[in-house]
Amino acid sequence: MDDGTTSQRVTIRTVAQDAGVSVSAVSKVLRNAYGVSDELRKKVDSSISRLGYRPSMAARSMRGRTQTVGILLVEMENPFLPVIVSGIMNELSQANYKSMLAVGRADMMIETSLIDSMLDFRMDGIILVAPRLKGALLSKYAKQIPTVVVGHHEPGSTDFDTVNGNDVEAMRQIVRRVHRDGRRRIEMVSIDRSSNDSDVSYQREVGYTAEMMALGLTEHIRINRLSEQHKREAIAPLVARPDQPEAYICWSDLHGIDLVSQGRAKGWRIPSEIAVVGFDDSPAAALPQIDLASYNHDGARQGAEGTRLLLSRIHGRTDARHVLVDGKLIERSSLTA
Amino acid sequence: MDDGTTSQRVTIRTVAQDAGVSVSAVSKVLRNAYGVSDELRKKVDSSISRLGYRPSMAARSMRGRTQTVGILLVEMENPFLPVIVSGIMNELSQANYKSMLAVGRADMMIETSLIDSMLDFRMDGIILVAPRLKGALLSKYAKQIPTVVVGHHEPGSTDFDTVNGNDVEAMRQIVRRVHRDGRRRIEMVSIDRSSNDSDVSYQREVGYTAEMMALGLTEHIRINRLSEQHKREAIAPLVARPDQPEAYICWSDLHGIDLVSQGRAKGWRIPSEIAVVGFDDSPAAALPQIDLASYNHDGARQGAEGTRLLLSRIHGRTDARHVLVDGKLIERSSLTA
Repeated sequence: MDDGTTSQRVTIRTVAQDAGVSVSAVSKVLRNAYGVSDELRKKVDSSISRLGYRPSMAARSMRGRTQTVGILLVEMENPFLPVIVSGIMNELSQANYKSMLAVGRADMMIETSLIDSMLDFRMDGIILVAPRLKGALLSKYAKQIPTVVVGHHEPGSTDFDTVNGNDVEAMRQIVRRVHRDGRRRIEMVSIDRSSNDSDVSYQREVGYTAEMMALGLTEHIRINRLSEQHKREAIAPLVARPDQPEAYICWSDLHGIDLVSQGRAKGWRIPSEIAVVGFDDSPAAALPQIDLASYNHDGARQGAEGTRLLLSRIHGRTDARHVLVDGKLIERSSLTA
Repeated sequence: MDDGTTSQRVTIRTVAQDAGVSVSAVSKVLRNAYGVSDELRKKVDSSISRLGYRPSMAARSMRGRTQTVGILLVEMENPFLPVIVSGIMNELSQANYKSMLAVGRADMMIETSLIDSMLDFRMDGIILVAPRLKGALLSKYAKQIPTVVVGHHEPGSTDFDTVNGNDVEAMRQIVRRVHRDGRRRIEMVSIDRSSNDSDVSYQREVGYTAEMMALGLTEHIRINRLSEQHKREAIAPLVARPDQPEAYICWSDLHGIDLVSQGRAKGWRIPSEIAVVGFDDSPAAALPQIDLASYNHDGARQGAEGTRLLLSRIHGRTDARHVLVDGKLIERSSLTA
């Protein structure tokens, strides 16, 4: 309960005197500690603004709190990521926390160096969104700083929490839905990082394969390199194939939107001959000319859940929690006539 | 040229000995100072990695350098912003800088508080992308930390640099191009923040109005509230109007994509009766079913230019520079038959 200030003009002591409360009460408000009454917070906040008091970052750091959470994003291009981030930010701002984001550019070395920075900056905790790092490397950091991972499956970890959509169950549900219309040749389009079972794409492959087998159908996963520059070109060979399946289920709208778009341009009868389903329910999927059925796994809620877990870790929880958030398939004309 | 280290196992002195150079030479390399030869950098870098030396953030802060640049984004939803950010990050990583992003959520109070954090974190400089803050408030910060502003017009500032597309000229060019096909009833769709002449949307309104007047045509700007949740609904009244113009020019693809999409769905003959042009050349504009002509003003280059300006400020430049980056209109079937 050290007041943490030295020789500024307006100190935590000045604030305490002005508010007529103890220094430790002001400190509690500043630390956003548990059990602070609304009345106390109001009193202290109004003295803080009246006096223009601003605790120095150094002082706050000395107490080990910067009231800032670091968010590490795998990259910036996938339109699903801002949805998760806005869920995180809404929840953080309600708890009086700020956030700083870093972008790992899908590179483990960069991720490592950015998490090191977040430690150096003495952030109170970190939320990693779909990181490339996994297993022991994540645990190493999680032992140093409260850590929550979103969009990355590692339910066995005892050092950090995870929040994900229920990717296996979601894919099983999509396969069943597509099959209900009598379609049997159902292929999945995935990406080439799937040797890593933490990946959501891999978990979706597992769900697809399991349900195809359960239905007695032959699974066929088409791995498609994903590169922002050449996405359109990457999809073209799929569209050009002479023998098409009765349905494509894409691991992400990143592929699904271009596939349904190029398929329509090529004259595919969608959905009567070929159905296309995506994953993430991104804004472009809902455009009338695209109208791609897509699985919405509630990124904002994933972000909010992850934030609540992080805050409870910051406040002392140490056991690991692994949360799966439910979603739902949004039916559109790429699937439903 | 203080070495800034205290009692770590591997110190800047160990690195200097290993590389056979002076401590101040190592310090220069670490600070990324001007006039460091490639040879010296190579020597020092290889000693640093051999010894596993990592200057502590505290030590770097004491020297006033964290090798980290803060990037403040107005919001995260506009797909044009990641393009600017990737331009910034490419340039920063080449100069051995990291970045931390913060999202201002289009709110001046949040922006202020996040820039305060960046000062507290002792970042080496800040790049503000389309901030809500302007004028004296920006200057106040720019006096404390090297500052570059991207996507915000303030060519009179002597305290910070700005980088923008040439929004006025771009709009004049679009109007001329649309008029060349014989269209005279040309309307602009803009957003409701345009009382602020720093805004790119306002500058685009200025360019539109100027060129319409130069051509002897009557300008008509339709202000359309922009809200992610209700964008589609906001566009609907425009699409429902009984009397349509011969062309819509939108301040951004954010409006343009929904407009061309809903117009097509309503049976508009595009482009024979109505042309639609957007701004930003975002990924969805290029989808075959959307195929929205759009002005590409090279966000990656704007980000890169801004970063080069910031680095030269960090290295001591104090005069202000104001850069306009050229772009080009990407013709698509919403404009060209």
